[in-house]
Amino acid sequence: MFTFYFGKGSCALATHIALEHVGAPYQVKLLDFSRNEQRSEQYLRINPKGRVPALVTPQGVLTETPALLQFIAQSYPHAGLAPLDDVFALAHMNAVNSFFCSTVHVAHAHAMRGARWADDANAIEAMKKKVPETVGANFELIEHSYLRGPWVLGERYSVSDMYLFTLARWLERDGVDIARFPKVNALVERMYKDPVVSKVLSAHAS
Amino acid sequence: MFTFYFGKGSCALATHIALEHVGAPYQVKLLDFSRNEQRSEQYLRINPKGRVPALVTPQGVLTETPALLQFIAQSYPHAGLAPLDDVFALAHMNAVNSFFCSTVHVAHAHAMRGARWADDANAIEAMKKKVPETVGANFELIEHSYLRGPWVLGERYSVSDMYLFTLARWLERDGVDIARFPKVNALVERMYKDPVVSKVLSAHAS
Repeated sequence: MFTFYFGKGSCALATHIALEHVGAPYQVKLLDFSRNEQRSEQYLRINPKGRVPALVTPQGVLTETPALLQFIAQSYPHAGLAPLDDVFALAHMNAVNSFFCSTVHVAHAHAMRGARWADDANAIEAMKKKVPETVGANFELIEHSYLRGPWVLGERYSVSDMYLFTLARWLERDGVDIARFPKVNALVERMYKDPVVSKVLSAHAS
Repeated sequence: MFTFYFGKGSCALATHIALEHVGAPYQVKLLDFSRNEQRSEQYLRINPKGRVPALVTPQGVLTETPALLQFIAQSYPHAGLAPLDDVFALAHMNAVNSFFCSTVHVAHAHAMRGARWADDANAIEAMKKKVPETVGANFELIEHSYLRGPWVLGERYSVSDMYLFTLARWLERDGVDIARFPKVNALVERMYKDPVVSKVLSAHAS
């Protein structure tokens, strides 16, 4: 049995969809970000970074979306959520997920979490202002270079689609019109029709 | 034969050390960042993100340090650079590498690359000012939570050590005294004595 720590609206959604998709046995623990529960003493013992997602497994705690996505795909290989038997294809998938994590998510984070990188209120405002441009540019790259077919990896559905779905749901809040990216938009619409996704989203609704 | 694109002083150092360590056949292509060669039309055809590292393989181009590190470890399993036969341990390694990429490297990037996230000169200055604090806090976490032994994974040397070595070499420039982190410092000193590391560093020297 896994215990999955998440916050509503956070990037933990991607891992949550993967857990549900493979039929993993897991219980959820919702952290209330408005009460800063991700920084509580109790949670910092689980994840000293004070972030989500975190997955408590029988062998220990795992964090970081790209690592968790490959972990779930490898733990449930029959679900076929990653090209596990092809070293290059798996590396490509991980490269996409790493780009999502370290560039796309980080660009988005400057809208709400600017205080991580500057103390000055005007600086935080200046970061917020640039988010539509940076996030928009990232999604241009995704639309034209990192969406190889109906799904991120081409014809096969994978954990990368769960991650892209999660990031794309932030576009509106970031002031970027998803209609600029027809392929991304079609992927998101298809995923909204997946009962697995609907079930997980209900746990994220307020 | 691989072709490895890198920039001096960049995070590509980690992948470079891994390639050299496993004895992979590769040629290097140095991009001159002072001439913005990473944004040239020719390079953007290889890596549309305009960043390093990029590895051209017979099957296609790979990018992103965490993905490249696992790719090299999986392509040369006898080098033993990752716990490939243990799904949990591999996920832990990838979680550490993802933290290095999306949090530690990103904190550092606010010193020199603030223009990625804000246009205002004062904001960029404010970001620069906070770097010693954010990078210092990240290395506190590494020292106390993510360095499990003499090496990142404990007793075994892995690609994560190559990545940590690369990030730790930025500390001085970031205004953080490495002496605050005795375990990190000892790891870095051991790695400087490795002939593989010395050979790679000579390609990064100016």
